[in-house]
Amino acid sequence: MTIFGLEANQVARLAAGVSVDHDTDIDESAAAEIFARASWTGIAEPGDSTAGALVAAIGPVQSLTALVDGWSIERVAAVLVDAGSEPISPRDLALAFERWRPRLVSRAVVTSLRQAARVSARLIHPADSLWPSAVDDLGVHAPIALWVRGTEAALQSIGSSIALVGARAATGYGEHMAMELGAGLSDRGVAVVSGAAYGIDGMVHRAALASGGLTVAFLAGGVDRFYPSGHDALLGRIATVGAVISELPCGSPPTKWRFLQRNRLIAASSIATVVVEAGHRSGSLNTAAHAASVGRPLGAVPGPVTSPSSAGCHRLIREFDAACVTSVDEVLELAGGFAIDEPRPPELDLGLGAGSDRRPPEQLRVLDALSARAARTTSDIARRAGLATSATEAVLGMLALEGCAVEADTGWRKKKG
Amino acid sequence: MTIFGLEANQVARLAAGVSVDHDTDIDESAAAEIFARASWTGIAEPGDSTAGALVAAIGPVQSLTALVDGWSIERVAAVLVDAGSEPISPRDLALAFERWRPRLVSRAVVTSLRQAARVSARLIHPADSLWPSAVDDLGVHAPIALWVRGTEAALQSIGSSIALVGARAATGYGEHMAMELGAGLSDRGVAVVSGAAYGIDGMVHRAALASGGLTVAFLAGGVDRFYPSGHDALLGRIATVGAVISELPCGSPPTKWRFLQRNRLIAASSIATVVVEAGHRSGSLNTAAHAASVGRPLGAVPGPVTSPSSAGCHRLIREFDAACVTSVDEVLELAGGFAIDEPRPPELDLGLGAGSDRRPPEQLRVLDALSARAARTTSDIARRAGLATSATEAVLGMLALEGCAVEADTGWRKKKG
Repeated sequence: MTIFGLEANQVARLAAGVSVDHDTDIDESAAAEIFARASWTGIAEPGDSTAGALVAAIGPVQSLTALVDGWSIERVAAVLVDAGSEPISPRDLALAFERWRPRLVSRAVVTSLRQAARVSARLIHPADSLWPSAVDDLGVHAPIALWVRGTEAALQSIGSSIALVGARAATGYGEHMAMELGAGLSDRGVAVVSGAAYGIDGMVHRAALASGGLTVAFLAGGVDRFYPSGHDALLGRIATVGAVISELPCGSPPTKWRFLQRNRLIAASSIATVVVEAGHRSGSLNTAAHAASVGRPLGAVPGPVTSPSSAGCHRLIREFDAACVTSVDEVLELAGGFAIDEPRPPELDLGLGAGSDRRPPEQLRVLDALSARAARTTSDIARRAGLATSATEAVLGMLALEGCAVEADTGWRKKKG
Repeated sequence: MTIFGLEANQVARLAAGVSVDHDTDIDESAAAEIFARASWTGIAEPGDSTAGALVAAIGPVQSLTALVDGWSIERVAAVLVDAGSEPISPRDLALAFERWRPRLVSRAVVTSLRQAARVSARLIHPADSLWPSAVDDLGVHAPIALWVRGTEAALQSIGSSIALVGARAATGYGEHMAMELGAGLSDRGVAVVSGAAYGIDGMVHRAALASGGLTVAFLAGGVDRFYPSGHDALLGRIATVGAVISELPCGSPPTKWRFLQRNRLIAASSIATVVVEAGHRSGSLNTAAHAASVGRPLGAVPGPVTSPSSAGCHRLIREFDAACVTSVDEVLELAGGFAIDEPRPPELDLGLGAGSDRRPPEQLRVLDALSARAARTTSDIARRAGLATSATEAVLGMLALEGCAVEADTGWRKKKG
């Protein structure tokens, strides 16, 4: 069997170099699957729904064969019917084949696989135990495979991770909040996912690393060349103790499109997304939109109205119903799945007619009517409080028991303090 | 006819001194009504629902007579039936009579009326054209009458006013926001209502005054002695060009209970309430709760999570569904009734897969694939963009028309800037 013009043994060798099971022998069909998925990560741009649908329907190997061998649209459609799959419109298929064909270069696949093996990047795919299955919620927009550098623990943590994202142009306040939330989640054993950008993202990763927590960075380009370059050392540390992930093969530069598609992975892989600080048009609003579209709870950290760097967060709260989150507990509450043991402090109950003092109205009014300096008669207190004398007597008795009121010879006084 | 032990001519003279129509003669029944309502403001504590129900059912004069002449509960109930009114539980009536009786001092009423006349305070009641009828939404908790010092224009503005309230312990940020919103609303011709406390409230009033706007302060004690005393000059100015209002007669000290009840008037009289800055247990949360309970839109200004003075605002947004408001426009939007002419800026539309760049995906991807330095062939661009060559050609044509791409001898380049 040849695939994409390569012999089976060559495919097996290349696949073994990037397989997560690289210590064990992989059989020919597993090798072909890995090789084909690796090829697809370079052929289709992230989020290509036709590629997603085709690979899901007839598998990556047959899909690749159809493309390489130049099958007619009719033949592909017939195979889809045989596979009992959802049909794909012939027009979409034709357009897709046309846009995939310019990238059909087996040399590029070989180069990217070799480069991946060189930097110890692995390819994980939906059948792997380490696959972050939450991304499958993206449907036909789910990634065909993911390139990863990192630890198994970090990859396994993604299923219960929380995404903390924000603008590159962060303020000291935003960085402080990123640090607080990133460290706080790490302290509770929750992995934090972000995009490794300057500003908020970088601070989130640093906070997790500083707390000994797990953190995962999704990149918009290949995992062999870290972006931004100023975060080279940071990403190196994340790859060592956490995980750096991309759906693009090694050697791929990040582009605007890929940043936007990368954001969908951050949003879909985590159980909730919180925007820590974002300007009115920040790219992190795109991550927020993805989180909302894939049904993940969305939160935003408020900030000063006078800070343009918080305008995006306020928009999310106002217009997109994002929860206003101000603490780690509130982030966990947003994510839902985590039990929070601390009972609500009693003052969290906003009452009418009581405000900061939780006493019943009569007690409050009698207390109002008491003086700490001068003793007052019960009837005077009743008049001042606007209560019946009998009721006033009863309340005074209660207050005396509590030690708030003292009876003297000439009447009642408020106890100080 | 005597009322409360006073002769009709004495009642008429006292009532004329505080009537809003004091330049014209008032007839005996109008004088009795004014006098009786004035009495009730001193006999029943603010928000006394039995007083509200009784006065609404059989009028202030007959209610006062029943109390002064010591009618039996049965007789009062019979009169209520004759008036075709909702019955009041005998137990509630008995308890109420018991608590009102200690305050049945006609001398106190006379003193407060004389003091009101001395400071030019007027008594307005539900039949007056200047009555802020929105407070009637409080039902049996509505005030029986209001003592006012101020201008007709200010009283008339209450119907379309917005309440801006907040904590005494305000930060520079909170005061800045109070000034911004208070001045901004004034500039749009909207009156601002607040509570004249130190901190946010005071700043709101000052902002309105500085902008030449109308402002109204509700007090928890009599309008003859301004509270807090440090705001004596400020309240004097408000009384001169705006209005200072209380439901308590002159001479009444403010109490905790009265502050809480005063808050219901601030909330009910305005079409919307916005909390500018408030700590976790601030009294302004009580105003917010009143606004919500009487069905008024509620807003809160977000602030730094690191500032305890914004914690109450964040609670309102999180737990009480208050709108997150960050500008005068958003306050007006909250209030609903005001048309905002400015169209939404186009970037207010959060899109998936587009972020800050609103181009269609294909254009974005082709732009990503172009270089400003090196010219690239169409097929190279197609491969980089992951698009069909024909589609790439079409997009390049569009971009060339827009001036974003330039065709050279060796291919296409991105136009700089």
